[in-house]
Amino acid sequence: MKQMATRISSIAMLATLLPAVVRADDKEVIDYREHIMNTLNEQAAALGQILSGTIPDDNLVAHLETIALTASTALKSFEPKVQGGEAKPEVWSKWPDFSKRMNEFAQKTAEMAKIAKEKSKDEAVASALDALTCKSCHDEYRQEKKKAG
Amino acid sequence: MKQMATRISSIAMLATLLPAVVRADDKEVIDYREHIMNTLNEQAAALGQILSGTIPDDNLVAHLETIALTASTALKSFEPKVQGGEAKPEVWSKWPDFSKRMNEFAQKTAEMAKIAKEKSKDEAVASALDALTCKSCHDEYRQEKKKAG
Repeated sequence: MKQMATRISSIAMLATLLPAVVRADDKEVIDYREHIMNTLNEQAAALGQILSGTIPDDNLVAHLETIALTASTALKSFEPKVQGGEAKPEVWSKWPDFSKRMNEFAQKTAEMAKIAKEKSKDEAVASALDALTCKSCHDEYRQEKKKAG
Repeated sequence: MKQMATRISSIAMLATLLPAVVRADDKEVIDYREHIMNTLNEQAAALGQILSGTIPDDNLVAHLETIALTASTALKSFEPKVQGGEAKPEVWSKWPDFSKRMNEFAQKTAEMAKIAKEKSKDEAVASALDALTCKSCHDEYRQEKKKAG
């Protein structure tokens, strides 16, 4: 604990010496929302493998539930108005539309997870195809960057 | 559906012409388990940001539930004995130990998610620190690779 306090104090001292180009907390905010969006990306890819028949569907329901849970966390991570990463400035300049669509995404994926738990796999898949229309939002609000080498 | 069948048939024909160095399904198997392990990585990182106090804890319970759900899917993704990716050969040569530890991980994170939903955030955090001992298994079973540039 003392070590941690010393470290934090050193960082605070250092921060006063550096130009304020990027605030450390801005980077944290961007990293956090990227952890969430990357989770959606990984889970959608896993789901895609199951839907294409290359991977058995044992985990189908769990993937759909994971996507729904993660969707429920996404909007909160964009609330701080910190531009950067893969988010276009339109996220905040068109916030009413962005937040409406994010809420709809959370709602639709929650319904999808409910169907997955309570009904057949076929019905779950149909609802997933309806809920996971990622591209329409990404076209408007995401500027995909190449991964650093 | 017809298009898909044509495509599959073309791939099957192509496969007979190619050297059988890597079977396509082996790559799919490796990709699938990496989607799952990457999800755990992203969610653990998001959780770490909350525990260190840099990100508000609004999504704490959802992150813990997501980790538990994903942990429940992990063992299945290693069942096909396909070496490669970041998995060491020991995953399969020491399968009884590996699978036991994966099952314990799933069980402990499920308890953690239950505590998170039913009890206080402090208790949830304590159970998370107990359940998420990723390093001990990674030291034994994972060979981390540099990401391709």
